[in-house]
Amino acid sequence: MTLRFGVLGAGRIGRVHAKAIASTSGAVLTAIADPVAAAAQTVAGEYGCDIRTIEQIEAAADVDAVVICTPTDTHSDLIERFARAGKAIFCEKPVDLSVQRVKECLKVVAAEKATLMVGFNRRFDPHFGALKAAIDAGEIGAVEMVTITSRDPGAPPCDYISRSGGIFRDMTIHDFDMARFVLGEEIETVQAAASVLVDPEIGKLGDFDSVNVILRTASGRQCVITNSRRATYGYDQRVEVLGSDGMVAAENMREVNIELANAKGFTRPPLLDFFMTRYTAAYAAEIAAFVKAVTEKSVPPTTGHDGLVALALADAALLSVAEGRVVRLSELLD
Amino acid sequence: MTLRFGVLGAGRIGRVHAKAIASTSGAVLTAIADPVAAAAQTVAGEYGCDIRTIEQIEAAADVDAVVICTPTDTHSDLIERFARAGKAIFCEKPVDLSVQRVKECLKVVAAEKATLMVGFNRRFDPHFGALKAAIDAGEIGAVEMVTITSRDPGAPPCDYISRSGGIFRDMTIHDFDMARFVLGEEIETVQAAASVLVDPEIGKLGDFDSVNVILRTASGRQCVITNSRRATYGYDQRVEVLGSDGMVAAENMREVNIELANAKGFTRPPLLDFFMTRYTAAYAAEIAAFVKAVTEKSVPPTTGHDGLVALALADAALLSVAEGRVVRLSELLD
Amino acid sequence: MTLRFGVLGAGRIGRVHAKAIASTSGAVLTAIADPVAAAAQTVAGEYGCDIRTIEQIEAAADVDAVVICTPTDTHSDLIERFARAGKAIFCEKPVDLSVQRVKECLKVVAAEKATLMVGFNRRFDPHFGALKAAIDAGEIGAVEMVTITSRDPGAPPCDYISRSGGIFRDMTIHDFDMARFVLGEEIETVQAAASVLVDPEIGKLGDFDSVNVILRTASGRQCVITNSRRATYGYDQRVEVLGSDGMVAAENMREVNIELANAKGFTRPPLLDFFMTRYTAAYAAEIAAFVKAVTEKSVPPTTGHDGLVALALADAALLSVAEGRVVRLSELLD
Amino acid sequence: MTLRFGVLGAGRIGRVHAKAIASTSGAVLTAIADPVAAAAQTVAGEYGCDIRTIEQIEAAADVDAVVICTPTDTHSDLIERFARAGKAIFCEKPVDLSVQRVKECLKVVAAEKATLMVGFNRRFDPHFGALKAAIDAGEIGAVEMVTITSRDPGAPPCDYISRSGGIFRDMTIHDFDMARFVLGEEIETVQAAASVLVDPEIGKLGDFDSVNVILRTASGRQCVITNSRRATYGYDQRVEVLGSDGMVAAENMREVNIELANAKGFTRPPLLDFFMTRYTAAYAAEIAAFVKAVTEKSVPPTTGHDGLVALALADAALLSVAEGRVVRLSELLD
Repeated sequence: MTLRFGVLGAGRIGRVHAKAIASTSGAVLTAIADPVAAAAQTVAGEYGCDIRTIEQIEAAADVDAVVICTPTDTHSDLIERFARAGKAIFCEKPVDLSVQRVKECLKVVAAEKATLMVGFNRRFDPHFGALKAAIDAGEIGAVEMVTITSRDPGAPPCDYISRSGGIFRDMTIHDFDMARFVLGEEIETVQAAASVLVDPEIGKLGDFDSVNVILRTASGRQCVITNSRRATYGYDQRVEVLGSDGMVAAENMREVNIELANAKGFTRPPLLDFFMTRYTAAYAAEIAAFVKAVTEKSVPPTTGHDGLVALALADAALLSVAEGRVVRLSELLD
Repeated sequence: MTLRFGVLGAGRIGRVHAKAIASTSGAVLTAIADPVAAAAQTVAGEYGCDIRTIEQIEAAADVDAVVICTPTDTHSDLIERFARAGKAIFCEKPVDLSVQRVKECLKVVAAEKATLMVGFNRRFDPHFGALKAAIDAGEIGAVEMVTITSRDPGAPPCDYISRSGGIFRDMTIHDFDMARFVLGEEIETVQAAASVLVDPEIGKLGDFDSVNVILRTASGRQCVITNSRRATYGYDQRVEVLGSDGMVAAENMREVNIELANAKGFTRPPLLDFFMTRYTAAYAAEIAAFVKAVTEKSVPPTTGHDGLVALALADAALLSVAEGRVVRLSELLD
Repeated sequence: MTLRFGVLGAGRIGRVHAKAIASTSGAVLTAIADPVAAAAQTVAGEYGCDIRTIEQIEAAADVDAVVICTPTDTHSDLIERFARAGKAIFCEKPVDLSVQRVKECLKVVAAEKATLMVGFNRRFDPHFGALKAAIDAGEIGAVEMVTITSRDPGAPPCDYISRSGGIFRDMTIHDFDMARFVLGEEIETVQAAASVLVDPEIGKLGDFDSVNVILRTASGRQCVITNSRRATYGYDQRVEVLGSDGMVAAENMREVNIELANAKGFTRPPLLDFFMTRYTAAYAAEIAAFVKAVTEKSVPPTTGHDGLVALALADAALLSVAEGRVVRLSELLD
Repeated sequence: MTLRFGVLGAGRIGRVHAKAIASTSGAVLTAIADPVAAAAQTVAGEYGCDIRTIEQIEAAADVDAVVICTPTDTHSDLIERFARAGKAIFCEKPVDLSVQRVKECLKVVAAEKATLMVGFNRRFDPHFGALKAAIDAGEIGAVEMVTITSRDPGAPPCDYISRSGGIFRDMTIHDFDMARFVLGEEIETVQAAASVLVDPEIGKLGDFDSVNVILRTASGRQCVITNSRRATYGYDQRVEVLGSDGMVAAENMREVNIELANAKGFTRPPLLDFFMTRYTAAYAAEIAAFVKAVTEKSVPPTTGHDGLVALALADAALLSVAEGRVVRLSELLD
């Protein structure tokens, strides 16, 4: 069986997924939809697929699954429509910026018995995957303390920030999901500190660019997340997990593995500085995992519930900053 | 001029300082005091100094300076006595477990115009020193986000913990001082999370063994401290500082610099696993800095005030854990 | 213009090139030839190309270029045939095991004005490419001393060795080419030492499994090559170049970038242990470079002459071992 | 029992040994001798020892052992004199620049049953010691291929080179000894290549500044040594040993363990750039090993024979360069 895909949205991330679909065995790209004709034509030209409207894809008998890469504020509506249309759904995070709206959307998905996978690409990165495998194999004993360092090379444009829901919802959300991935136990409390250090314009929008978060589970496991919107040395993506018997860490990635030595010292190149090059393998593996789940009728590795919890953690962090206190996740979810 | 030292306390840390004095040019070890005769004799035998009582050292004309390595609850009294006796004073941290008592003690020191240096050895470590020098040279621009990872190889005995004031006051206190050393701006707020994951006996004493702390300055600079009482791979002591133009990090230390490769992978030895071997150079440099300050009549690099603030930060962290809120340092100090 | 390819030989390396062609823009795989029908069918099935005989490809109007991946003893004949047939030729190294035969073959290529590229894949590896770029950018000043460490994970089967021409011709030959790539000056003399340490069966075949070679140019630049047929820790492929102003080194590659720490130490995974995974990017870039050269009618980056010199260096090394002396390359080439 | 030392020569290396003696338990520095009064006074002032002539030390009843740090051409005479005077002797390498003279000298030592240790400090370096221990513990199986990279930060003054016997006798000699230390089997053949790349003045003296050497044992184990008189990035001292089951390597050393990251990359400081700082621990351990051997009346870890063989290997390398052939060590020693 070959899974026939429609991709909604031919922007940057839509093209990433189109490419992943085209090179995944058991998957074929049938149609692309985008209000910007040129963007749709680029994808159609590269992969030989149809250009259709969202409505046409919704009604199409030759499309089994959709990948939603449209603007965030359309995600939950599209999920509901395609759940009702009987399509398997892969949606980029977040499902919505409102926890309440996400809950309603997930009810529709559940009622329709639709398959929904939410795109947390980092879980599919081979390096973080190997780290998780080491934990699961018992190589560090019981997980105790996690440190996630996640820094973007540079801040996004202000107009993105004004629509993104802010740093916790657009950036830390990936780290919240990673924390859940490696902690192996649900998070109970959140506390956070937030500053504007990179760009005062970000502060004017009511957002932050430099944050630290402490997460804690019921049994006392803890995770620290440290984020910045600026890292001159590249895209800094590290995870370190301390357990009762040892530690496992996933290091950063470079394009080339060379070192230059001279009187100034020993210098290795900066890190890969773009999420699309850093996570190339992850995006491919993510789509393959979705194809596998749909084909085998199994639960996808990252569900709507995962999307909901990550968003609630972001809201909890914001609340913690606003009120200067430890926030229980249940305050947001119940 | 040669500075003539009396060392009070011939225990583990007293012997470290005795050795440092003996090998510091411009310093000589004149006397050792310890109620345990055998301990005093060991030091006297090794360095050829007198054995005297504390009272004798207090009254001695041939002693210019003392190093206080006695139990914590004697520190503040001894500081006051030796300040009144006109001796220069080096005291192991902490000055006392009570912020109030420290304040009183420092008043006496000030009134007597005595020189007091408090032992925060890590500031004198060559690796952290080089990191600080890089910051001061502007190599990373403005300091923004600091991450301090500090893990002991194993928990101390429970009877030590019951007297130490707990993890924030005996262990994190070093990291609080390191945070102040590299942040370059006073800390305004503290928030912390604490767990018992290593040893339930520690929990029975009301203490914790696994903590994370977020510190924040007035301008928004932040520092995360992550501590554990257990690291199977050695004594983990790392500092990483992100600035507007780059990052500088001090890495861990090993006894030997070899790597073994086979079918299981590439393995380097565990870290140095004892604070006395890890910080050998720091302890020597610390005494040299004290000798220099006394000789030159300058302010020591780590003062009683530094000891006071680090202790107050520890109290603030405890209060944050107890009340689940962000604590202002001024609540403890004013 | 799209370059239409026939691939001769559907074995392991033939499939590597078929895949590279299929994913190179400006190239298309038109036909595969292999006496083993199943092997040809696998490739045809995967890339949707024709199955043809070598003769059919030779005569085909719809084939512009061939990739020769047949057994070594057929290489020179096929090169001559396809040169005469007016096809551009990419041939796996070596052109032949006889320097004399290679010379004759290259005369035919020259007479026919055919384009011939010989497959020295490592020149196209991004890591070695970055190393070369650093040299060319003057970052280490004048090249002086090169160290190439090249060790296979395990010895090939004895029946391969009996046909391969021995370690210098099948394994070191890549390092000879790499030496020429980075030295930037022709090699004048060769001296070598050879042992059988890995497998006595290899010795029975008259071959060696552990060798060191010193190469020297007219101006005195030197290169050491160290080879072994066994490395338990993976495929060890390192190049280090010392210049008047500094050093540049290309390090080994791992599948994942994680590190595990415990009481035994800090362990990173073994190296990639297969030339096809280690050099995946190199094989793709190699075919792209061939397509570019043919399309632009420029000289390919690795020519028949490069193949000839590398083979002569192998013969010189063998002669050095046999006679216990320094051998001039001109003894083999003139 | 305390071993009472006379040190002959108060130059750079004499002061290194004087300091080592002063800080070695079971050893005391009794006298220093040097024709330059100021040099002797510096040592005497620092360690509180007598200033005596060589003749006085020879005749002294209160001196048990001497450390010979005088110019090379006096070594063998002094060894003989002090062997006859019944003193234990530690002599800096080389014993002499003439193999014949060394042999005669060792005969006197043997006849007098004197203890003679020759200073190959690197065997006592903790990093190389750990590497050797790993080999001896069987962690890499049977030793097969050794690579020694040894580069000085800069060339010594030409007047030193004119007296030193040349690069093989003053620099590579340490690596020859290291090769014997790790190979675990006597070397049978030597082949070498030599160039002048760093400084033409060195060439005018008939010496070289850039050399590679291949050593081979009877069973086929091999060692490559690569030397240069210039390394802009510091004092490069690496040893890598490949065995049947794995590899062990000793890496370079830095003064501080920090890394700076910015848009240019990740930079660690240059290496320690002076043999006295790089080998501080080795020099101390070397004297301690001598004291132990004399005190326990055991054979010192590095004997006159080790000095003889290392020198003969240097002569063999020179002969190999001169005649362009593999040289058997027996040609030099028999």
